Amino acid sequence: MAVRPELLMRLRLEQPIIQAGMAGGVTTPELVAEVTRAGGLGTIGAGYMTAENLRSAIQLVKKQTSGPFAVNVFVPETPEVVAEDVQSANEKLSLIHKELKLAAQPMPEKLPFFFEEQLEVIIEEKISVCSFTFGIPSASQVERLKAHGVFLIGTATTVEEAVQNEQAGMDAVVAQGSEAGGHRGTFAESFGKAMIGTMALVPQVVDEVDIPVIAAGGIMDGRGILAAHALGAGAVQMGTAFLTSRESGAPQAHQEAVLMSKETDTAVTSIFSGKPARGIANKMMIWMEALEHNWPPYPIQNMLTQPIRKEAARQNEPAFMSLWSGQGTRLSVQEPAGVMIKRLMEEAEETWESL
Amino acid sequence: MAVRPELLMRLRLEQPIIQAGMAGGVTTPELVAEVTRAGGLGTIGAGYMTAENLRSAIQLVKKQTSGPFAVNVFVPETPEVVAEDVQSANEKLSLIHKELKLAAQPMPEKLPFFFEEQLEVIIEEKISVCSFTFGIPSASQVERLKAHGVFLIGTATTVEEAVQNEQAGMDAVVAQGSEAGGHRGTFAESFGKAMIGTMALVPQVVDEVDIPVIAAGGIMDGRGILAAHALGAGAVQMGTAFLTSRESGAPQAHQEAVLMSKETDTAVTSIFSGKPARGIANKMMIWMEALEHNWPPYPIQNMLTQPIRKEAARQNEPAFMSLWSGQGTRLSVQEPAGVMIKRLMEEAEETWESL
Repeated sequence: MAVRPELLMRLRLEQPIIQAGMAGGVTTPELVAEVTRAGGLGTIGAGYMTAENLRSAIQLVKKQTSGPFAVNVFVPETPEVVAEDVQSANEKLSLIHKELKLAAQPMPEKLPFFFEEQLEVIIEEKISVCSFTFGIPSASQVERLKAHGVFLIGTATTVEEAVQNEQAGMDAVVAQGSEAGGHRGTFAESFGKAMIGTMALVPQVVDEVDIPVIAAGGIMDGRGILAAHALGAGAVQMGTAFLTSRESGAPQAHQEAVLMSKETDTAVTSIFSGKPARGIANKMMIWMEALEHNWPPYPIQNMLTQPIRKEAARQNEPAFMSLWSGQGTRLSVQEPAGVMIKRLMEEAEETWESL
Repeated sequence: MAVRPELLMRLRLEQPIIQAGMAGGVTTPELVAEVTRAGGLGTIGAGYMTAENLRSAIQLVKKQTSGPFAVNVFVPETPEVVAEDVQSANEKLSLIHKELKLAAQPMPEKLPFFFEEQLEVIIEEKISVCSFTFGIPSASQVERLKAHGVFLIGTATTVEEAVQNEQAGMDAVVAQGSEAGGHRGTFAESFGKAMIGTMALVPQVVDEVDIPVIAAGGIMDGRGILAAHALGAGAVQMGTAFLTSRESGAPQAHQEAVLMSKETDTAVTSIFSGKPARGIANKMMIWMEALEHNWPPYPIQNMLTQPIRKEAARQNEPAFMSLWSGQGTRLSVQEPAGVMIKRLMEEAEETWESL
């Protein structure tokens, strides 16, 4: 199997594997560095990081590798904080506060806003690749990053979103199929309509854009990598596979839930963050969905549930974590990330030879 | 690309392409025969056919080809017909009767039940392949068909359903991903949980069963065929692609809707038949979904909406048809089925050479 060279040469990669920028502590500097050392593209999931934390994470990765790695950031949204809605949501969540013996949580007064500062850190630290979730940065932000030689990767869940990414100057685009774990990257379509399976999404995106397409969603092994290439993708982005790697920062209970679960165990929910994301159904998801409450939008809901998820992680209690996972859970393996990448590419090669 | 031989040899096929058994008149004898003549496996969609109609369709196919072809049947369900529920559903549907200038429809007194007779026709006509949707036939039915040398193909939307098919003696199983058009084949899981994308479903099924796996859902061209093989499938089943073939019996308005639509235009609905199925959203789907009515179960609802769909087809009015379609609509092409199969395999070969 001869990997298509364009994208890999631009990114200085040996293997067509991008480790997804999972936010919330999964992408430890060790994971990012190990993926990059193994020839893939490690990614710091900086979505919820302050500029200071991002800089510190970048410097820790740099101590372990001189190779290229990426930073993933969330294009911000700034909905109005309505005090009554926050209070009402917090009242509903108090059911879980009690279960975890967590004190009632104060209301956030303003939304965190790291995005501009994150981009400055990326430029100052001479990061070679920046990927975006939840939308497209402004024209001036794109221009400034490109002037500093940063390779830009957008995220699309529909053909139209991929076209918008290309038109905005992105250098490549992730086509995120409905199988994918974690947040849906949807930004220009209703979430329900943008649940397109990877098998259908990737070739339709490839036909409509000229930039390289990175396939994501349900890709867990060498068979999936080869299949993504057959569909026209220049590389794959894998999240769930790396979530159970030795270097992953996901809580042990989260990793065990992924390793033990079946393909039918995940669901898409907005209750953790205010935005739809795929994870293994647990008590928190089932309880809160049953309330049919009108939760505050992202990122307000995310801030409200954050203390719960933090405390659940401390107690290693999966019932109240966000157990992000894609639909390929039966294929998850616990092994070092470097070993995983070697195995994945051997599997892809063997599969190719068997065709 | 060397196609895996086991399944193809058993089925006497030259090409690893099965034309899906779309019910409701799509699979004309011309389509079935042309697919078989081109080296694929044509399938009569006999789901709603009487034994008499099935026999006549089989004989028309036999006049055009001596090659192998399949018959797809629906494993029956026999819910109780509750007169008040039927009346209430018919009242809601009268909105559409008026639009189509269709007389009010009488209540069905009993459910059609063709299954046993269909199986007898399949045996008498020495059909070589029989595929099942909506479940698994009884042990004695399986035994009888196998005693007559019929190759049996089940349908699964989860790993567990595939395992049940294997245990029941099916010779192969279709893994139907969430991208697929038409009815969900789900029978042992809730429909919502069984929406697994093809990229995630196929390899997980392949790992858990020993019988050959046929990939379905979002496969529309040679790239998809190669990808399905990379995932471990022995063949693909394609419905939407053949729906717009020259030999298709789908109403012209249905074919045009598929050819003109985007990947985001389909949705899964139960309003046409009482069972979830994927089709292009139209007026009937949107109106009836908005009513949030508790419709009768399959196949009662299917009988109630049948006169509407028939009249809509006669008027070539897509607003009130069931416009079944998978998510790969942008890849649909209008061409003769034999030309299509040749093109698909050339594309698969070219894609394989490019990897």
